[in-house]
Amino acid sequence: MSLYDKFLDGSVIALSRIISHIENLRPGYQELLSRLYRRTNGIYRIGLTGPPGAGKSSLVNLLAGQLADDGRRVAVICVDPSSPFTGGAFLGDRIRMQDIPVDKGVFIRSMGSRGSTGGLAAATSNVTVALDAFGFDTLIIETVGVGQMELDIIDACDTVVVTLVPESGDAIQALKAGLMEIADVFAVNKSDRAGAEQMLYDLKSALEMRTEKSKWEVPVIATQALHKKNTEELLRLILEHKSFLETSGQLSHIRGLQLQKKVETVITRLVFRDISSNILSDGVLEKAVDKIMKGEEDPYSAGMRLYKRFKLGS
Amino acid sequence: MSLYDKFLDGSVIALSRIISHIENLRPGYQELLSRLYRRTNGIYRIGLTGPPGAGKSSLVNLLAGQLADDGRRVAVICVDPSSPFTGGAFLGDRIRMQDIPVDKGVFIRSMGSRGSTGGLAAATSNVTVALDAFGFDTLIIETVGVGQMELDIIDACDTVVVTLVPESGDAIQALKAGLMEIADVFAVNKSDRAGAEQMLYDLKSALEMRTEKSKWEVPVIATQALHKKNTEELLRLILEHKSFLETSGQLSHIRGLQLQKKVETVITRLVFRDISSNILSDGVLEKAVDKIMKGEEDPYSAGMRLYKRFKLGS
Repeated sequence: MSLYDKFLDGSVIALSRIISHIENLRPGYQELLSRLYRRTNGIYRIGLTGPPGAGKSSLVNLLAGQLADDGRRVAVICVDPSSPFTGGAFLGDRIRMQDIPVDKGVFIRSMGSRGSTGGLAAATSNVTVALDAFGFDTLIIETVGVGQMELDIIDACDTVVVTLVPESGDAIQALKAGLMEIADVFAVNKSDRAGAEQMLYDLKSALEMRTEKSKWEVPVIATQALHKKNTEELLRLILEHKSFLETSGQLSHIRGLQLQKKVETVITRLVFRDISSNILSDGVLEKAVDKIMKGEEDPYSAGMRLYKRFKLGS
Repeated sequence: MSLYDKFLDGSVIALSRIISHIENLRPGYQELLSRLYRRTNGIYRIGLTGPPGAGKSSLVNLLAGQLADDGRRVAVICVDPSSPFTGGAFLGDRIRMQDIPVDKGVFIRSMGSRGSTGGLAAATSNVTVALDAFGFDTLIIETVGVGQMELDIIDACDTVVVTLVPESGDAIQALKAGLMEIADVFAVNKSDRAGAEQMLYDLKSALEMRTEKSKWEVPVIATQALHKKNTEELLRLILEHKSFLETSGQLSHIRGLQLQKKVETVITRLVFRDISSNILSDGVLEKAVDKIMKGEEDPYSAGMRLYKRFKLGS
């Protein structure tokens, strides 16, 4: 039996291997993705992001468990940008991941930038295709929001939950920084802590002020993952947003845009490969650097000169 | 007088405007960079990175002041990845930046991913060209190390100082995460705090174990920026590393590799522009997405098909 057949047969080990194959861009991965894509059913993607210590992992565990109890086939991707400075947090997250209800058939995959060649956002999107093709119908992607890369991943989700905690600072400040644009649901977790009421109030006020582009009113909910308080209500809000996307036609609109992006990414990667192999093959780059070091040329002129040489045909 | 003439005349306002021009990739920025590059003298770049709260800004202020006192012309770039979750820290950094000794002629520029179109690493490198051409001979680049993007920036420096604090976690863990590879000097700041001795010991032990590729022995120094303790010694170590790079011939080797990268970046950007304008111009991307949505094609096959259409000439 081939790996792919085992995958079709429902082997989780085969799934894991196929994910690694895709992540590492091993030969034939594009063709594999083509085949997998034809088996997808439009997995529903929930993104969950927030600052370190907001209790994201606990919320993800509870949501995954509840979804599994409702009969959904759930996968979880934990995105860790492998910052050299989050060594501790990384380990902490992996320990907390053990609480994920695997006994309910929840599949977990951790992804870090050091593991995946060529772009975490593209890798996450490709792995999603494999999970979808395998038969999962709901995916939760957890990221620590630390930069553009993580925002790109979260942008590719259908419903985005932004988790804050009372001590994560001024809510208005967070909103100004662009969270308002990405959040479909706000969860103020650890809401038994001081400052929770104020944060809820501030968030709601700020959301009321904004000019509505879509007709979805972003809800704000106080949760306590530790005491399982309001987490079912949080899931209800998430699924309400899903229904909204479906009935309003926004889901197919979003997915169209995401597909555009995906096709562009595929083209870009192939062109990249050509540039590298062409430029590196006959030493023109080294010659250009020599000239620059001698002061005969500058890198910008050299780039333009070589670009003309490898110009795109049309 | 043109902006460029004012720049040559030493106007800091003209410098700031030229930096904005480059950062925003305004028409003619590549030609401008060509002209600027011809005026560069090989500015020496010190990278300083570390976790939030390690006292990086204070160290940068002190180092910049000491360098200026030594007669150097110093510029500082603060890289802030504009994380939506560091709203507070961002503000804090900007306040601390006011302590930078501008009265000693130190120029400060803050760069964030939201401000610079198309890649923070490329933007930082381009801004460095402008600073170099203006006449600065020493540049300090401060980043909060949170991801690949910041590592790319730090990689492009000549001497890298990694700043840790006793409470930033297990030193060994940090080393495992890749800091050993990038650090030329380790500074354990806030060394009056508990755990400092242990961290110094752990760092030194770990460094001793590593197999030496270069002949530079990475020093570990305990500093207290707040009490100006050992910061002159830190600068001495940095400049020692600079001498090492120069006498060993490594500096010109590093710069050759960086130039290769720069030329590649210039080519890639131009090709990118072509892909976008070609693909978007005649609606082929939209047509491909239509086909995918109808289930007649998948995004990977579509990407390969369109790639062939826009294939590179050779």
